[in-house]
Amino acid sequence: MNDVIFETVVTTVALDGKPHIAPMGVRYRGDQVVLMPFRPSTTYDNIWGTNCAVLNIVTDTRVFAGCVTGRRDWPTQPAEKISGVRLTCALSHVELRLAEQIDDGQRPVLHMMRVHEVVHSSFAGFNRAQAAVIEGAVLVSRLRMLPPEKVDSEMAYLQIAIDKTAGPHEREAWGWLLEAVQRHRASAAHVIKGPSP
Amino acid sequence: MNDVIFETVVTTVALDGKPHIAPMGVRYRGDQVVLMPFRPSTTYDNIWGTNCAVLNIVTDTRVFAGCVTGRRDWPTQPAEKISGVRLTCALSHVELRLAEQIDDGQRPVLHMMRVHEVVHSSFAGFNRAQAAVIEGAVLVSRLRMLPPEKVDSEMAYLQIAIDKTAGPHEREAWGWLLEAVQRHRASAAHVIKGPSP
Repeated sequence: MNDVIFETVVTTVALDGKPHIAPMGVRYRGDQVVLMPFRPSTTYDNIWGTNCAVLNIVTDTRVFAGCVTGRRDWPTQPAEKISGVRLTCALSHVELRLAEQIDDGQRPVLHMMRVHEVVHSSFAGFNRAQAAVIEGAVLVSRLRMLPPEKVDSEMAYLQIAIDKTAGPHEREAWGWLLEAVQRHRASAAHVIKGPSP
Repeated sequence: MNDVIFETVVTTVALDGKPHIAPMGVRYRGDQVVLMPFRPSTTYDNIWGTNCAVLNIVTDTRVFAGCVTGRRDWPTQPAEKISGVRLTCALSHVELRLAEQIDDGQRPVLHMMRVHEVVHSSFAGFNRAQAAVIEGAVLVSRLRMLPPEKVDSEMAYLQIAIDKTAGPHEREAWGWLLEAVQRHRASAAHVIKGPSP
């Protein structure tokens, strides 16, 4: 597939009703939304259990930065037509039902049917700081795989858009990402030094 | 002002009806939209002449990349309530009338009143390639001020998101930006060498 990938947040519920919030890159294919959750993952298990998921279109980047820095508890409210929840901060949400599971590997391809769609507020336009938080969240989610110099130089580049175009939400999200990089460095230093002999 | 800046496209018309299309970072202040066009500029002159402008919320990044690479001719249609045009590809547009001009320097601050607002289609979510095109367009608009190594390293970084998440529109826009960098280098080399003695 060579379609555009959109960075969204997928919400699902377990069979006991416990909600799960996961940032996810999704594709649109005609009328369907294509999800590729890893297996195993809570999102995959929940869709397997309920056949349902909610696609949340979100511009509050604190959700993306929060989910990669241990802040997974965002306000939700019940979906309207399916078993599930949607993010309260979503600009719009689409309630989805599983139509077809195409691949059986480690990343199954789930074709989801649109059951119900609600627009809550309108998109205000591109913001470079929001894009920088998304890129920073990608970097933070890969800290263990990336050389520190690469992380530093890319964070420094992204910082420019934060300084020039961010509002309070983007600054808060960016702060969480910077903290996560520091924390990772501190724990990596600890591992390298190791315990005294 | 320390508000979020949103990257949008402002359309205006001259007194003779000729449309003008300009990417512009704007701020929202309560119910008003704050524009800061340079003076002199066609956008400023047109707003001075007509008191009107249209704010276009656009995710087709070809408009942004096009306007910084000499492709300023995008399809428009008449505004509904004011003298002006809106971009046909706009996700939504807001028809604006000048309420107050606060500053008289080289960048006057224009507080614009919302007269009419129409949503044409819904926002599909963040796309990292679209954000990369926006950043690339900022770089290309500053080619004369930036060292070539900085442009190269930032374009190389942005290329990653293009390769991973772009669709045909984003690839086309990105191609225009790469061409513009090449063209600038070729003409800079010409200037440095100068004519044969």
